[in-house]
Amino acid sequence: MKLPLGYRYAATYAGIRKVEKDDVALIVPDKPARAAAVFTKNVVQAAPVRLARQNLKISKGKVAGVLINAGNANCATRTGERVALASCKALAKALQTRPEYIVPASTGVIGVELDAKLLTAPLPDLVEQLSAESFQRVAEAILTTDTRVKTAAEEVPCDGGTVRVAGMTKGSGMIHPNMATTLGFVMTDAEVDSEELAEILRTATERSFNSLTVDGDMSTNDMVLLLASGAAKVRPSGKERKALREAVTWVMESLAEQIAADGEGAKKLIVVRTVGFKTPEDARKVARAVANSPLVKTAIAGSDPNWGRVLAAAGYAGVPFDPADIDIEMQRMPVCRGGLAAAFDESELKQKLDEAEVRIRIVNRKGGKGEARFFTCDLTEGYIQINGSYRT
Amino acid sequence: MKLPLGYRYAATYAGIRKVEKDDVALIVPDKPARAAAVFTKNVVQAAPVRLARQNLKISKGKVAGVLINAGNANCATRTGERVALASCKALAKALQTRPEYIVPASTGVIGVELDAKLLTAPLPDLVEQLSAESFQRVAEAILTTDTRVKTAAEEVPCDGGTVRVAGMTKGSGMIHPNMATTLGFVMTDAEVDSEELAEILRTATERSFNSLTVDGDMSTNDMVLLLASGAAKVRPSGKERKALREAVTWVMESLAEQIAADGEGAKKLIVVRTVGFKTPEDARKVARAVANSPLVKTAIAGSDPNWGRVLAAAGYAGVPFDPADIDIEMQRMPVCRGGLAAAFDESELKQKLDEAEVRIRIVNRKGGKGEARFFTCDLTEGYIQINGSYRT
Repeated sequence: MKLPLGYRYAATYAGIRKVEKDDVALIVPDKPARAAAVFTKNVVQAAPVRLARQNLKISKGKVAGVLINAGNANCATRTGERVALASCKALAKALQTRPEYIVPASTGVIGVELDAKLLTAPLPDLVEQLSAESFQRVAEAILTTDTRVKTAAEEVPCDGGTVRVAGMTKGSGMIHPNMATTLGFVMTDAEVDSEELAEILRTATERSFNSLTVDGDMSTNDMVLLLASGAAKVRPSGKERKALREAVTWVMESLAEQIAADGEGAKKLIVVRTVGFKTPEDARKVARAVANSPLVKTAIAGSDPNWGRVLAAAGYAGVPFDPADIDIEMQRMPVCRGGLAAAFDESELKQKLDEAEVRIRIVNRKGGKGEARFFTCDLTEGYIQINGSYRT
Repeated sequence: MKLPLGYRYAATYAGIRKVEKDDVALIVPDKPARAAAVFTKNVVQAAPVRLARQNLKISKGKVAGVLINAGNANCATRTGERVALASCKALAKALQTRPEYIVPASTGVIGVELDAKLLTAPLPDLVEQLSAESFQRVAEAILTTDTRVKTAAEEVPCDGGTVRVAGMTKGSGMIHPNMATTLGFVMTDAEVDSEELAEILRTATERSFNSLTVDGDMSTNDMVLLLASGAAKVRPSGKERKALREAVTWVMESLAEQIAADGEGAKKLIVVRTVGFKTPEDARKVARAVANSPLVKTAIAGSDPNWGRVLAAAGYAGVPFDPADIDIEMQRMPVCRGGLAAAFDESELKQKLDEAEVRIRIVNRKGGKGEARFFTCDLTEGYIQINGSYRT
């Protein structure tokens, strides 16, 4: 993975997690980078989310450091604001910048006081350890119940030279469109101005993190941050700008897919595709209802080609359609034609449903132009085990 | 249980289920009863749902017989309409009435052709076996993945004599507001006119079946039917009408609670109560979001007083509020005050959360008049086991 130029990383164990595993991490551009961010839409927002939003406003989208902790969401606590503020001040001091140039991000349990000292004490040493090579270590430090590191990278050849995009993220439960218990950090070394950066992030988020559901829950702490260091000293123009936008989208789609595939207890990635609906919004609603249906997700867990559940979930999406117009495919095999059972080899399909990636395609024969795609995962006993005992 | 006068019941095994367990059942009023019904809002509706709606319209809400089958939903099949129609004709013939006076109802797997003969062949014999005592047997016959029979009854003393209300229902997955894979049959022997019957059913449904969620899915076959035989020869008036309405509501609330408590894999009934929101709709949205949150439901399964998840779910209900105004109680113990952790004895609360009924109360201190209550159940490994292999 060729990483974007102009960033250094570091992570350490600060005692926030109960287990000894890195829980404080830094992403630091060599010079303040341009930034765009999207945040959770939950009305309950963690202190670091509120402060990150405020800092980005004051700094006019400039970021000199990102301070991430896992193990405690710093949400719904008495001292949340103070802790977030103190941690930004401490990092700003260590980096010799202003606190408003720091973006704080937290993930973990809600409603438990976070000791500010745990977060601030290691910062001077951590800044000393910053290195371009620690990208992977940070990607590991931000994980909670995830079982795998989630990273992706792309390169975009431009006339002035290559620019790079790389991202990391964490899942894995409580993932829902309009953010998730997701922290996502995407870095590029291209030169991009703030407005364009925001526009790139908006469209890429729509196609990736906002097309993702694990359990229908939405967290208080979610954030995706896109940074542009400009260190490649290349400003993409014309077609190159489109290519950069696509590269960011690919990276974020890959991250979203990795989150779904690593959903809590998940054994399979499920990709739900809807085609032929009146509008993209209608197509999205149908794809989301199917992706979010526990009955569909448990059927897939059991490799059961139960297309009736897919049709039923589509039917309550709030989108009017005639079931007689609906075709459904699983793993590219037709299972439903015109709302009725298609003839298919059940044992062959069951075998195909054992694969790690399951594709469900829902076609409305009415033939509108609305299409959408949603990522999710199967629902297994593992989800229950993880979430029945996460806090304690 | 004192049953309403004027009804007879029967059930038998007709070979629709794979296992030998009653799968065809009748509810037959001695004379055509007045009826009101509510149906699934899924755009995919099973043939019997469409036919039931049509029959009730043609008969102007008169019902001479209810024909129920389990084991096959008669939905999304080529022959669905024909099968439903043929079964109504066969029962009408056996009862010497018109097919439009029959209400058909099916529950079970979607997308598998139902052999009409299985349904029609036993009807002449079944009509012979009708008896007032077979209420319980019908309540058993309509079950699918339910582990328990669900019935409830009330009596209302009136000046002219006592009137009775009794109901039966089935769950247990795919339960969601605006109906569920629920069939509900509620009988009274009071004399009630059609308009009032519809109004009683509407308000009782809102407080019971529409305040119930097991997994957020909504079925293609749901129906609740309220019948009034008039056999008690008592027409409630004034206060008595209110008492009758309350009795129907109590019966249906009890049925809804029993469905939640017997949710697929459920070990606990969860009752979510919201108080102090601006409008009843706001209160309902918050209660539903919490009741529907897999993270809340798994926490309760693990007896984990994870109020942060409750607050987070409330936060994405689409209702604006200030977290600082929110108090949360579990089992009557304060766990969150003004959006922050309350001091509570965690081991004591964990013990209380082991009980079969868990109460979560969410109070908005802003003090609006909107209140609501939602029934749900905990989410356990059992749900996954049942639904990963239901069809096959």
